Amino acid sequence: MISRVLSAELPKHIGERVTIAGWLHRRRDLKSVSFLVIRDRSGLAQVVLPANGKGTAAETSPTGQTSPTGEASPTGDTSPAAQTPEETVLQIEGLVVANAHAPGGAELTEPIATQLSGQAEPPPFDLYRPALTATLPTILDHAPTTLRHPLLRSGFEIAAASAAGFRAALDAAGFTEIFTPKIVESATEGGANVFQIDYFGRPAYLAQSPQFYKQAMVGVFERVYEVGPVFRAEPHDTGRHLAQYTSLDAELGFVTDHFDVMPVCRDAVAGMVDSVRERGRPAMQLLGATLPTVPAEIPHIHFAAAMELISAATGEDVTGEDDLAPAHERWLCEWAEREHGSELLFVTGYPLASKPFYTHPDPARPRYSNGFDLLFRGTEIVTGGQRLHRHEDYLAALAARGLDPAPFAGYLQVFSHGMPPHGGFAIGLERWTARLTGAANVRQVTLFPRDLHRLSP
Amino acid sequence: MISRVLSAELPKHIGERVTIAGWLHRRRDLKSVSFLVIRDRSGLAQVVLPANGKGTAAETSPTGQTSPTGEASPTGDTSPAAQTPEETVLQIEGLVVANAHAPGGAELTEPIATQLSGQAEPPPFDLYRPALTATLPTILDHAPTTLRHPLLRSGFEIAAASAAGFRAALDAAGFTEIFTPKIVESATEGGANVFQIDYFGRPAYLAQSPQFYKQAMVGVFERVYEVGPVFRAEPHDTGRHLAQYTSLDAELGFVTDHFDVMPVCRDAVAGMVDSVRERGRPAMQLLGATLPTVPAEIPHIHFAAAMELISAATGEDVTGEDDLAPAHERWLCEWAEREHGSELLFVTGYPLASKPFYTHPDPARPRYSNGFDLLFRGTEIVTGGQRLHRHEDYLAALAARGLDPAPFAGYLQVFSHGMPPHGGFAIGLERWTARLTGAANVRQVTLFPRDLHRLSP
Repeated sequence: MISRVLSAELPKHIGERVTIAGWLHRRRDLKSVSFLVIRDRSGLAQVVLPANGKGTAAETSPTGQTSPTGEASPTGDTSPAAQTPEETVLQIEGLVVANAHAPGGAELTEPIATQLSGQAEPPPFDLYRPALTATLPTILDHAPTTLRHPLLRSGFEIAAASAAGFRAALDAAGFTEIFTPKIVESATEGGANVFQIDYFGRPAYLAQSPQFYKQAMVGVFERVYEVGPVFRAEPHDTGRHLAQYTSLDAELGFVTDHFDVMPVCRDAVAGMVDSVRERGRPAMQLLGATLPTVPAEIPHIHFAAAMELISAATGEDVTGEDDLAPAHERWLCEWAEREHGSELLFVTGYPLASKPFYTHPDPARPRYSNGFDLLFRGTEIVTGGQRLHRHEDYLAALAARGLDPAPFAGYLQVFSHGMPPHGGFAIGLERWTARLTGAANVRQVTLFPRDLHRLSP
Repeated sequence: MISRVLSAELPKHIGERVTIAGWLHRRRDLKSVSFLVIRDRSGLAQVVLPANGKGTAAETSPTGQTSPTGEASPTGDTSPAAQTPEETVLQIEGLVVANAHAPGGAELTEPIATQLSGQAEPPPFDLYRPALTATLPTILDHAPTTLRHPLLRSGFEIAAASAAGFRAALDAAGFTEIFTPKIVESATEGGANVFQIDYFGRPAYLAQSPQFYKQAMVGVFERVYEVGPVFRAEPHDTGRHLAQYTSLDAELGFVTDHFDVMPVCRDAVAGMVDSVRERGRPAMQLLGATLPTVPAEIPHIHFAAAMELISAATGEDVTGEDDLAPAHERWLCEWAEREHGSELLFVTGYPLASKPFYTHPDPARPRYSNGFDLLFRGTEIVTGGQRLHRHEDYLAALAARGLDPAPFAGYLQVFSHGMPPHGGFAIGLERWTARLTGAANVRQVTLFPRDLHRLSP
């Protein structure tokens, strides 16, 4: 391994000669001195270059070593350091000295630099500027490079921490991780919005969710989760729709109804928040983002009651609606914050008509379902509920929707072999991260997003 | 939540009335007594049914409760318990009594049972038999049900534990988890064996690996990993090829060469073994499988030296070959066990001609690469190596192979913006699990496998 100390460790080495390595984040030229700011995975380190001719002896080797002794002035100076473009990868040996004005209180002096990459081409925008100065299309077109910007990078640190927290919470609750097929024989779940694939000469589809597989695996492990990609041929070109996103899926058996699923969902979200608090604090600070407090019991409201509240508050009668409009989700989030002091709100009992056929009806009010959504900061981030678990109930549900059971035979098979009452939920990782970080567009927190218009990089 | 104790907890409740719930794994009828064996996620519990008429009062309700008082004889007995088919899901309340012959030393008596599922149809083979009595196609055709067999289920517990161990080892080494696109614009990596998809009316492909994305993300996080599906349109119908498998991918920057990548790979494998030891012990015992000892330094041999050894030992001159045949991999594994007492062996320096274009050559012997494979119990389970990191080296490598650089432009972009020397590796989770558990066919340890002939369930 290239022997080096990380920039965050420099203060521990004051008085020693050490080697650091990273990207040339910024070069700042003052009259009598220049600074190189080196970025590595731990943060930034400052390197002091003395003015031309007055500095430390430096080595030059035919294998790419650079003599960083020149003052970088816009004109005339031709020393190699002055010419090194930003984003070039450098290894720099030097003496660590204390400097209260440097990041972490230490900086590197008397530097000898070696270039590890080729000379970098200028990135599409200045990665060292605190704010993003490029448009989203520019950022996305050059994602392999622009993701290096600390603000963009932070979003993915938070996504990674969130996924880890989801898994930790469910591991602690006795769940088993599964890995399910992403290529399926028929587009059973939604019918529309599926991508077709040429599977050894016959048609197949990309899975819209692991729904059927996670249900089947309740029969094996009782409690399962999966973190993986799902695919939607979304014709919508909005700030929250993607053709591929990361779904945090969970499913568990032996529930009484959806009110047994919601606490598990609560714990998963709390685990995600805890993990971000623990591992993503610098990223959250950089983004100026705050974590929600997850109540021990997240408040909940029935869909019908929610619609009455909205109708009463807005004067518009929405009690006949089957789903929440985005404006209603925002209104309910404001209401939950006002009434319950919670940024999270479960809405339960969505009308069965707005839910997939596998949704369990509310036995007491069959127009409504045992389904729920979790709203957070104005948007639905989780969908879940109790599922049907008896074979005959599936046949009846399909018949009631006028659907032919034949294409569902493979899916329905397991329900004739003994399945307990069960339910589950799915969290969209990118949408969650967007809400958490305040990103206006989910693409800002999606690694190389895929949508109606974008298939690269 | 349905209030219950897990079967493994029964011994803690001797003398109490408790409720258990699970699948009717087996019904055993003796002359004067019958036993129900109930399976839940923690194991098996034995329930004692007294002979017909001599038992405890039991309830029957119109909502599906079953009176388990009957002796189950093949003829005549019509009590509901006697008729309950295996795999039906039951909730059973009863008195816990000590019995040294019962699983865990406790059993449930005076039972009152409630049926939670519909009456189960008989599964395609007896799930309670210790050995699998069905053929692999039958097992796979009915996977949602047959996976409940403890032997099959065990393989997936081991896979889950392995994935968790991989992540834990890399988290501890400062890696960041990433989630990359599975739909890509061009089939750049291999050229062949890709699945084509209809992406909003234009052609796209399923990703054969996250190779290019994980390399790009080294520029952002230095050290990244991904656990996710990869897709290969493998025309091979063998016991180790799948159309989709789970790839454990890692990539890290600031390496000197592949000898800096191999220790990280070693630690990842050691983490997987540790996790299986910790979380998968019952599954390993059930399968009669043993864990390898992972040496602090896994022995390694150069490809050229390996070919000389094989040639000398077998009398067949293979020194001109560019790759290892399966028989050679087996021979080398036996050699490593004999010479080094290790079930794991790195083979380094595979000829460049057998490796993808992004492979870094050995600077001292350009016919060979800075690539490596890890062999385990006769098979390659990991492929890795150092990659090229300079833009001009990529252009030269493509030209040397007669490849047009145009389709690679998106991939190559990041290398013109400063990339450190880097490398990585990928472990096939299913193939690893097969080697660990002794499964002859990787499909036995793949959840709902996809191959040339199989697209469902």
